[in-house]
Amino acid sequence: MTDHVYKLTELVGTSPESLERAIQNAVARAKRTVRNMRWFEVQQIRGHIEKGEVEHWQVILKVGFTLED
Amino acid sequence: MTDHVYKLTELVGTSPESLERAIQNAVARAKRTVRNMRWFEVQQIRGHIEKGEVEHWQVILKVGFTLED
Amino acid sequence: MTDHVYKLTELVGTSPESLERAIQNAVARAKRTVRNMRWFEVQQIRGHIEKGEVEHWQVILKVGFTLED
Amino acid sequence: MTDHVYKLTELVGTSPESLERAIQNAVARAKRTVRNMRWFEVQQIRGHIEKGEVEHWQVILKVGFTLED
Amino acid sequence: MTDHVYKLTELVGTSPESLERAIQNAVARAKRTVRNMRWFEVQQIRGHIEKGEVEHWQVILKVGFTLED
Amino acid sequence: MTDHVYKLTELVGTSPESLERAIQNAVARAKRTVRNMRWFEVQQIRGHIEKGEVEHWQVILKVGFTLED
Amino acid sequence: MTDHVYKLTELVGTSPESLERAIQNAVARAKRTVRNMRWFEVQQIRGHIEKGEVEHWQVILKVGFTLED
Amino acid sequence: MTDHVYKLTELVGTSPESLERAIQNAVARAKRTVRNMRWFEVQQIRGHIEKGEVEHWQVILKVGFTLED
Amino acid sequence: MTDHVYKLTELVGTSPESLERAIQNAVARAKRTVRNMRWFEVQQIRGHIEKGEVEHWQVILKVGFTLED
Amino acid sequence: MTDHVYKLTELVGTSPESLERAIQNAVARAKRTVRNMRWFEVQQIRGHIEKGEVEHWQVILKVGFTLED
Amino acid sequence: MTDHVYKLTELVGTSPESLERAIQNAVARAKRTVRNMRWFEVQQIRGHIEKGEVEHWQVILKVGFTLED
Amino acid sequence: MTDHVYKLTELVGTSPESLERAIQNAVARAKRTVRNMRWFEVQQIRGHIEKGEVEHWQVILKVGFTLED
Repeated sequence: MTDHVYKLTELVGTSPESLERAIQNAVARAKRTVRNMRWFEVQQIRGHIEKGEVEHWQVILKVGFTLED
Repeated sequence: MTDHVYKLTELVGTSPESLERAIQNAVARAKRTVRNMRWFEVQQIRGHIEKGEVEHWQVILKVGFTLED
Repeated sequence: MTDHVYKLTELVGTSPESLERAIQNAVARAKRTVRNMRWFEVQQIRGHIEKGEVEHWQVILKVGFTLED
Repeated sequence: MTDHVYKLTELVGTSPESLERAIQNAVARAKRTVRNMRWFEVQQIRGHIEKGEVEHWQVILKVGFTLED
Repeated sequence: MTDHVYKLTELVGTSPESLERAIQNAVARAKRTVRNMRWFEVQQIRGHIEKGEVEHWQVILKVGFTLED
Repeated sequence: MTDHVYKLTELVGTSPESLERAIQNAVARAKRTVRNMRWFEVQQIRGHIEKGEVEHWQVILKVGFTLED
Repeated sequence: MTDHVYKLTELVGTSPESLERAIQNAVARAKRTVRNMRWFEVQQIRGHIEKGEVEHWQVILKVGFTLED
Repeated sequence: MTDHVYKLTELVGTSPESLERAIQNAVARAKRTVRNMRWFEVQQIRGHIEKGEVEHWQVILKVGFTLED
Repeated sequence: MTDHVYKLTELVGTSPESLERAIQNAVARAKRTVRNMRWFEVQQIRGHIEKGEVEHWQVILKVGFTLED
Repeated sequence: MTDHVYKLTELVGTSPESLERAIQNAVARAKRTVRNMRWFEVQQIRGHIEKGEVEHWQVILKVGFTLED
Repeated sequence: MTDHVYKLTELVGTSPESLERAIQNAVARAKRTVRNMRWFEVQQIRGHIEKGEVEHWQVILKVGFTLED
Repeated sequence: MTDHVYKLTELVGTSPESLERAIQNAVARAKRTVRNMRWFEVQQIRGHIEKGEVEHWQVILKVGFTLED
């Protein structure tokens, strides 16, 4: 096995639907500029409330990707 | 912009369905007595198990609301 | 009331579907060997990314169960 | 089971006697205005020293109680 | 010495000027409804950025006050 | 000195009397199946409240024991 | 509302004057390459001491900005 | 009020009797060389187990004392 | 992919030589009773001092292994 | 480069004026007995409230200094 | 002294040999694109186990570098 | 057993060679003035980078020693 090096980038994904969707939105957006994403770790879960209802979910996550040789 | 002051209150919402629903239940209950809720932050996710199945989800969250002038 | 003693065991559940399902999978697997499970606490939420999409969700949780007399 | 919502309130109990008494003092004081207290969690243990002796114990705790429907 | 019980309430103060002013704004606002405030503890320091400049400072703090007998 | 390896197991002891007794109850219960216990570390202190009184104390602790060769 | 995605970048600002100025220096420097900065969160406050005097303040902060579509 | 400066020193007190006694032992020992002790904060609670019984309690605490002018 | 479930067990490895060796000792000992170990995470690094020299290194680690179907 | 060893000491500085001044007061007081101070790290920010106003600021900090050969 | 601003980037270095080598691999890889690296801080130590042996070490670290004017 | 009291002192050891050597350097330096050192706990691992290479390792550790009667 070669000695891989990974980089972590921290993102906030949002969604009016669900926590999973907020994470998927962040990963989908990162995909445009980052290749070789391998895993994510949730840092914090928050949300915005409007008129006494949860308007959208916010998930802060770290995404790890392989730095290519 | 005027200098807003917010207050945080800590709640536990529960639901047999999902994490999102547990949070929404807490916010819906708080709505009866608290106006101007603006955001929430999840503190912990727990749950109750009955006969080897998750019976309900529990989410501890902080809710922030504007203190009116 | 007698003086109950509980034990905590730490598990990682995975699911391609949702966070709730990842937790339920861990609890269902533990059910085969552990009786009297009472509660769980989420420790961390992670996930695996394949080709720029979340391939499966991983939830690290502690499960508490009663030690029988 | 109905979907309960709980509220957490943070208190500091003090006692010249013991840690347990400091917690009980906080709960006893809260009982005057809060109904349906269900559990507490210790956040921090501190104390005051006077003339090289522990004069009183201080326990910071969160108390959870059911919000009635 | 009698056995005092204190309560902690969590606030967010804001100010366009400084961190100290953000804290003082929160304490001044709380003064209207809370008597016998005794100390505060900073939980987090944040801020809002507008057009590449810090527009206002936000300080999350816990304020402790004596519960009267 | 030989290279010892220890294992940590996480328990919750309860007692209506005191924090020390809750810990001792957990250790006494573990003694039935675990040999060579060496130390414990308190993770969290909680308790159950019934009718505005602390009904029993709960201490979450890790117990370390030597794995025999 | 569209589903925004934000990115967090971690910086250390320094200043011989004050904590606020150290933060503003970091934000001002980031402004040259990052558009749409929205908020910051202080991670740690440190400082350098020279000849028994605080020579400069160091603030580690995370800055959040909107990823444009 | 003059600008007091306090120093914190970290100690481990032990006792075969109770947590309170372990703390008091640490404070009593510190009293021989430190004047003006004002408060303590518990950092961790541990203990030693011998033959399946808690042999002694260990409390790691910080003690704060006034630095005299 | 099937829905794997992993279990985490917490160990303390020791060695008079190095941190890496302390970890390897813990893993080697666990290998006797645990199959399918997949990863470890270091929780804490400690050590024992004898006559002013580090006598042995202690590493607290969590080891994750696959629960077989 | 020789192998430097540093020591950390924990102090609480206070000031009626500002957070920076509270830190500077602690460093100035330490200067009387400690040489070669090199850096500080803020551990906690607190304050005392009197009659609904912040009476003085308290900053808990660690100060690092070189141990001379 | 001018007001330096530093940026922190988070990396994971791996090595089959040692913890130090895992860190050095991450720094060596970052060197290709980042100039003026000044310090690193270890965030977490993990590793991969294959056939009951540590196959490679993983160190998550933050690397700080000067942003040039 | 008599009731021992221990004191903790916080040090930073450095070494161009390895993490273990950085710790041993700190312990060796402390040995000159502190008797009866018993254990250490690593608090943080850092390092200095010069020209894209790790120049020296820094380990922040707490050292515990017995206070003699």
